[in-house]
Amino acid sequence: VKRVLGEVRQRVEATLARFLAEKRAVIAAISPELEPLVRAAETLTLRGGKRLRPALTAAGYACVAPIQDLGAVVDAGASFELLQTFLLIQDDWMDRDEVRRGGPSVHAMLHRELGDEHRAASIAIIASDLSCAWAFEILGRAAFAPDRLSRATQLLASAIEEVALGQHLDVIGSRSVETVHLLKTAGYTVRWPLRLGAILAGASEPQLVALDRAARPLGLAFQLRDDLLGTFGDPAETGKPASSDLREGKESAVIAEARLSLSAEERERFEGTLGRTSSDEELSRIRALLEDRGVRAKIERRIDALLAEGHAALEEPSLRAEGVEHLRALAELIVSRKV
Amino acid sequence: VKRVLGEVRQRVEATLARFLAEKRAVIAAISPELEPLVRAAETLTLRGGKRLRPALTAAGYACVAPIQDLGAVVDAGASFELLQTFLLIQDDWMDRDEVRRGGPSVHAMLHRELGDEHRAASIAIIASDLSCAWAFEILGRAAFAPDRLSRATQLLASAIEEVALGQHLDVIGSRSVETVHLLKTAGYTVRWPLRLGAILAGASEPQLVALDRAARPLGLAFQLRDDLLGTFGDPAETGKPASSDLREGKESAVIAEARLSLSAEERERFEGTLGRTSSDEELSRIRALLEDRGVRAKIERRIDALLAEGHAALEEPSLRAEGVEHLRALAELIVSRKV
Repeated sequence: VKRVLGEVRQRVEATLARFLAEKRAVIAAISPELEPLVRAAETLTLRGGKRLRPALTAAGYACVAPIQDLGAVVDAGASFELLQTFLLIQDDWMDRDEVRRGGPSVHAMLHRELGDEHRAASIAIIASDLSCAWAFEILGRAAFAPDRLSRATQLLASAIEEVALGQHLDVIGSRSVETVHLLKTAGYTVRWPLRLGAILAGASEPQLVALDRAARPLGLAFQLRDDLLGTFGDPAETGKPASSDLREGKESAVIAEARLSLSAEERERFEGTLGRTSSDEELSRIRALLEDRGVRAKIERRIDALLAEGHAALEEPSLRAEGVEHLRALAELIVSRKV
Repeated sequence: VKRVLGEVRQRVEATLARFLAEKRAVIAAISPELEPLVRAAETLTLRGGKRLRPALTAAGYACVAPIQDLGAVVDAGASFELLQTFLLIQDDWMDRDEVRRGGPSVHAMLHRELGDEHRAASIAIIASDLSCAWAFEILGRAAFAPDRLSRATQLLASAIEEVALGQHLDVIGSRSVETVHLLKTAGYTVRWPLRLGAILAGASEPQLVALDRAARPLGLAFQLRDDLLGTFGDPAETGKPASSDLREGKESAVIAEARLSLSAEERERFEGTLGRTSSDEELSRIRALLEDRGVRAKIERRIDALLAEGHAALEEPSLRAEGVEHLRALAELIVSRKV
């Protein structure tokens, strides 16, 4: 399994690098003034990431049929990496986040280059549009029969729609944290990439239902891990400042759980630090308090329960054993990751 | 021909209204907090527009094969109306335009509702993303064989890519006005919708080449008419303030031509009004000066020449006479429109 995951990752990097180099060449020939735009999308796309989504696409495929042409499956899965670029650019601009994947976020980078904030934001949004168009293009080029590609394209459109709905709820600060997570992260990170692979392999309806049942808890677990990392993560590993979620006062499972687990007095002190420029010492004391009141442990237990739910859903005879094995390995990766 | 155009327009309105009402119902069931987002995209989409692009899709189809199912062709063409919503929302925000189609632009409307400018801009961008996803969805639902739909989807992705490139050049204030027009408007307004119809009808390569040859001059003529309307248009008809392009100092064919046709002294006076808050009297004097120096007449002559070039390109035996007839009528509409 590890070998396959490593191979998927390598191929995704190669596919993206080749696709973007080709784009850069074609577009620079139209006008050299377009170079910074392409570079913005390219830099963020190639700056790493776990390439978890194409791996899920490959696992989804293998759950339904043996992978004959891993290259084609990876090409299709790479569309989610370009979609990720599209989303991260917009998300960082909306949240005013300056750092992403250990480097400057796209709007921050452009702001530094251009000076003008509105112009930088505009070009960041255009770079996100470009990444979105490329996601459809790279998927459409993948070597599959037109009827499957057609369904896959509809899936990509549905994924974008769902993420947009989640993003809206996030931006308006909706208190329905779980709905936001389901719409903005769980589907997009686990369910849709997995389903993409299954559809390309010609999945039956029962197979799709079985994968959905596993995807939902795993997607939520992914987000809960994200929330824990946003408060307790190691900056050296996450590439983000320590406790960045607390600094931003971002609605997260940690904050929701803290509201339930702290005394009135503690809650007041806790909420006083949210979204403020607190000292490192104060944030460190807050983290100790959250640990002490069991906030972190409760969320870890929910993650364990969701993982178990995911594993149980995969006890499903209609899914191929080889694919299920990959998927189980990915599930462990999803919940135990440190980045 | 007029009857067909009227019918296309009516069907486009009905298709869009039905699609958006369905979306509103489904999405409101997820969370009522999503309602303003959907309404933002819906309001602008249904606030009119000429529905020129779906008419071009129908004409492109008819150039290749008899239209058996006008409903399917219109469904496909309607994707360009949703794409138009996507683009207009972003364009207005980038240009800080407050008015569109005789009402407030989307970011301006949201700003008024929400108070917070950054949040309003964020939601406007999310509404544009949603419209983009819907463009792919409505196209994917159209009743055509998967291999043609697959090609059509790739075309939509290429159209978005091209517009994004043009938008970038526009935002950075590129002096290559014709390149901007070709990328941002000509393709997206004429070439791509026409080609969409042709591809769905199963066009041969020579047919596609012939249509492209006609589309290019017509797309440029469309943009030149736009530029004339932006300076000389009647606010009662365009739904925009008088001489809005001059007020904004927007790079246009009028400004490019003025630079060539005015004396040094006149040019200085002219450029002094660009992008400034000039009085109505001053703008009226500037318009008279441009008329007097033949700026308007020269652009009208270029439009006539481009229209003739378009008509000549349609003298092409591989295209069906009925489709060519529709296309000629649309070409006249494109260059003579007052809105």
